[in-house]
Amino acid sequence: MENLYKNYLLELSFLGTPFHGWQYQPNIPTIQGELLKAIGKLFKVEWVPLVGCSRTDAGVHAEQFFANFKVDKFIEPYKVLKALNGMLPREIVVKKVQLVDLSFNARFQAKGKIYRYLIWNSKIRNPFLLDRAWHITYDLNLEKIKEAASYLVGKHDFTSFAKNEEGRNPVIEVEYLTLQKEGELIELRIKATHFLRYMVRRIVGTLVEVGKGNLEPTDVKKILEAKDPTKAPFNAKPHGLYLHRVFY
Amino acid sequence: MENLYKNYLLELSFLGTPFHGWQYQPNIPTIQGELLKAIGKLFKVEWVPLVGCSRTDAGVHAEQFFANFKVDKFIEPYKVLKALNGMLPREIVVKKVQLVDLSFNARFQAKGKIYRYLIWNSKIRNPFLLDRAWHITYDLNLEKIKEAASYLVGKHDFTSFAKNEEGRNPVIEVEYLTLQKEGELIELRIKATHFLRYMVRRIVGTLVEVGKGNLEPTDVKKILEAKDPTKAPFNAKPHGLYLHRVFY
Repeated sequence: MENLYKNYLLELSFLGTPFHGWQYQPNIPTIQGELLKAIGKLFKVEWVPLVGCSRTDAGVHAEQFFANFKVDKFIEPYKVLKALNGMLPREIVVKKVQLVDLSFNARFQAKGKIYRYLIWNSKIRNPFLLDRAWHITYDLNLEKIKEAASYLVGKHDFTSFAKNEEGRNPVIEVEYLTLQKEGELIELRIKATHFLRYMVRRIVGTLVEVGKGNLEPTDVKKILEAKDPTKAPFNAKPHGLYLHRVFY
Repeated sequence: MENLYKNYLLELSFLGTPFHGWQYQPNIPTIQGELLKAIGKLFKVEWVPLVGCSRTDAGVHAEQFFANFKVDKFIEPYKVLKALNGMLPREIVVKKVQLVDLSFNARFQAKGKIYRYLIWNSKIRNPFLLDRAWHITYDLNLEKIKEAASYLVGKHDFTSFAKNEEGRNPVIEVEYLTLQKEGELIELRIKATHFLRYMVRRIVGTLVEVGKGNLEPTDVKKILEAKDPTKAPFNAKPHGLYLHRVFY
């Protein structure tokens, strides 16, 4: 009977501010919950298994995000796109809908991701970046942060920088970890094969400690080598984090 | 007694979304109202004459905005900055405070301004530009808009594009009016000596009609020459408009 099912892949984008993260929670606005409600209404089903490419924390944004669900009814993809966008809160948008092979899984088949992290490094807050960048008033030393970041590039065991509650492989290939500053805005980009829970936020939090002078760049190397999650208890604010690209 | 007074000039920036425009209205959140409240508390005065460089409509943003007020008490400018930022809603920020000559008036001494207008021209909404750009799903013809815009550059009587309720001089020198498109984002910039009420929004609204094919580029020339405000009843959404720079 399996072949009566269709596998719909949604390409999404969302502003994380009004939501308590991706994962469904009863009576709390979440991205998965809003999607399940809209999909349920459209396909007239009570529930579908909706798989997201990652579990974003409360307040985290996604410029690109993929999710798939299987359902035994057929509605033209362009109609699904239009109908879902009409029902979803305006902070969530469906950019593309396509039918994919039944074996496709948005989470397990992701081959890589890019995250961006924004820091507004200024004495004065920026009204256009409220909830969209971490505001740090302390003047960060970018050269020290860059040195510290260099120790994290390559294939390493990232146990120290994560809460690996799902028992995923902590050995991760970080393809790049770059920093750019334009005016008072610092943008950090990190590309890796996969990420552990809190990994980007803990890396950014630790790098900010280096930028403030509370840690030396070489301390980051030591923390990495310790493979001990208690060594990097520095969690950057969620609202500066953007899932930027997902690769399959 | 005049020389007991100090003239404080504030450089501001604000996200217009939560406010009903610049101008004070009782019991309604406005930018001027929020500033008057904070200044009143800080200087322990009931009211000060607070002059803004322009009267922005509800929902309009300012990347730069100037306002000045005179008061017969002295508080160090850096303390004024810190105190006001601590009391103001987070969407309003004071970037700089300085003492200026008593004759300085933020409104009447402005020599020029640049406004930006953002249009998100896409079938699909952009969650990061909600309340920050006008979402137009119709695919606009940029070449036609550029031709229409060219008729507005230079010194003209802009009576047709304004609600000139304050009887200001309708002859305005538009130094430039440029359009740029990056992906699905269109940015329009206009620099002029001064602006009449609704002028930028009506210019953008009329150009969008050209972009949709409802008006020909040469119609804009005819509307301009008619000097009749009923000829351009096309008002672009306020939330795409940003006061970008003010020159003195």
